[in-house]
Amino acid sequence: MSVLVVGSVAFDSVETPFGMRENILGGSATYFSTSASFFTDVNLVAVVGDDFSQEHIDFLKSRNIDLRGLKREAGKTFHWKGRYGFDLNEAETLDTQLNVFQTFSPQIPAEYAAAEYLILANIDPELQLEVLDQVKKPKVIACDTMNFWISSKPEVLKKVISRVDFFIINEGEARQLTGEVNLVKAARAILAMGAKNLIIKRGEYGVLLFTTDGIFAAPAYPLESVFDPTGAGDTFAGGFMGYLASTGNFSGESVRQAIIFGSVMASFNVEDFSLDRLRTLQYSEIEERYKTFKAMTHFEAL
Amino acid sequence: MSVLVVGSVAFDSVETPFGMRENILGGSATYFSTSASFFTDVNLVAVVGDDFSQEHIDFLKSRNIDLRGLKREAGKTFHWKGRYGFDLNEAETLDTQLNVFQTFSPQIPAEYAAAEYLILANIDPELQLEVLDQVKKPKVIACDTMNFWISSKPEVLKKVISRVDFFIINEGEARQLTGEVNLVKAARAILAMGAKNLIIKRGEYGVLLFTTDGIFAAPAYPLESVFDPTGAGDTFAGGFMGYLASTGNFSGESVRQAIIFGSVMASFNVEDFSLDRLRTLQYSEIEERYKTFKAMTHFEAL
Repeated sequence: MSVLVVGSVAFDSVETPFGMRENILGGSATYFSTSASFFTDVNLVAVVGDDFSQEHIDFLKSRNIDLRGLKREAGKTFHWKGRYGFDLNEAETLDTQLNVFQTFSPQIPAEYAAAEYLILANIDPELQLEVLDQVKKPKVIACDTMNFWISSKPEVLKKVISRVDFFIINEGEARQLTGEVNLVKAARAILAMGAKNLIIKRGEYGVLLFTTDGIFAAPAYPLESVFDPTGAGDTFAGGFMGYLASTGNFSGESVRQAIIFGSVMASFNVEDFSLDRLRTLQYSEIEERYKTFKAMTHFEAL
Repeated sequence: MSVLVVGSVAFDSVETPFGMRENILGGSATYFSTSASFFTDVNLVAVVGDDFSQEHIDFLKSRNIDLRGLKREAGKTFHWKGRYGFDLNEAETLDTQLNVFQTFSPQIPAEYAAAEYLILANIDPELQLEVLDQVKKPKVIACDTMNFWISSKPEVLKKVISRVDFFIINEGEARQLTGEVNLVKAARAILAMGAKNLIIKRGEYGVLLFTTDGIFAAPAYPLESVFDPTGAGDTFAGGFMGYLASTGNFSGESVRQAIIFGSVMASFNVEDFSLDRLRTLQYSEIEERYKTFKAMTHFEAL
């Protein structure tokens, strides 16, 4: 089954201890879509400006991403500028130019309205609600957000949370949203807001999945060279939902496997700037690394 | 087989966001020994002052710990005072009074010299070398250290590292010792110093084991209330070595199980101040939590 992704397509300017790149392809929906495209068909809803080059369109098309929902408007594409220190877990935002994204109002094309797998990438929660109202009866909804919306629109965000199957958030944001320092208590508070399941991202420490059945802990892949963490969380979520949609199975076991596939995708993505590593990635490499995750975490039962 | 533990027995004064305790039982060897005693016999070599009360001696004896190597000297017992903020991963040391520990020179009783399992808890690496020279032919040596020795005696410490089977260190210390920010590179550098295996502790994020065969990643148990993280690393190491010694099996599989048992022990220990949780802990609870670790990390292979 195909996945519908709504979010941002952007240009990024990124500085890490290992180099600097200007105006490279970025945006939450770009990472989500590209990552999910390794597992299933993807429909993308986003907006770009008239400076968005054909080269990027061609790349997204080469990943078989359906771009009928990608609007092009007069003006400049959303631009994010950030920097990472040696602690690659946290970006410092240097500049955000919303540009055409400022007036973005996601219109779900009629042919996408029956989407069964929906990803609400990180955008204004008001827009996330608008999308939820346009999509008829999705089987699985995943949703991401960021610290900015938690502090500026917590009540709207909570309405979104109450309607999603997988709320995906990072560790610091989970604490910010709930006011709970302890992560297990924070997770319980978020589940109490109505999210069916919660995925807490912990950067190089992996992810925790909280469900009514219990907790699943997955490590991150210990990499020898992390070049650029931008988009790691979105790439994770794309792999996660892409795999779930490809199987149509949302059992606990399948969800855990999806988390590992998401972690595998994120581990590749950080190996190079922008989405460059995904440009050459082969499905056989994904399977190989999944096996490495299994070997890396296995221990005998009592 | 029994485990020989050499390290510190101390009084701690600890402040956490959840309370404050003065002059409670602490010390690296105390945590190591008590934790290991759930799995096997333990011989303890350490020194205390004349203020060390019979109550604590009785507790250690109740854990079946052999105290023939515990010297009592005139003066006060080693005293550590520390504080934790809401980020419970790192203690702030407020005061250290070495007292009788200042002139400690570990004498391994003749009846311990044939020990097959040796734990060098965190003490001056010069003393760790002295112990290594007194113990005839241990099968497995585990060794811990701290930032103070890394900065003050790195060359002596490296001599110790070259002689141990399991070097146990926390994440920040691994970076400090090697000057490598990337943890995989830091691990490789430490293995190149001659440690056969390396265990990197990451507090609430679990541990990584590096061997020549690859990496094993174990999460920490996500706890709803962490009261006092003091001794978590030592309790981990005690459970790890205690289990290994109890089986006499050092296969890769057995080492991974030992890491989980260590993680289980640490997860209990932080639930209360000092070693108080271990005072009431039952072996059945340890097995129960081991099973929870298994359930929490399991996912299907491809």
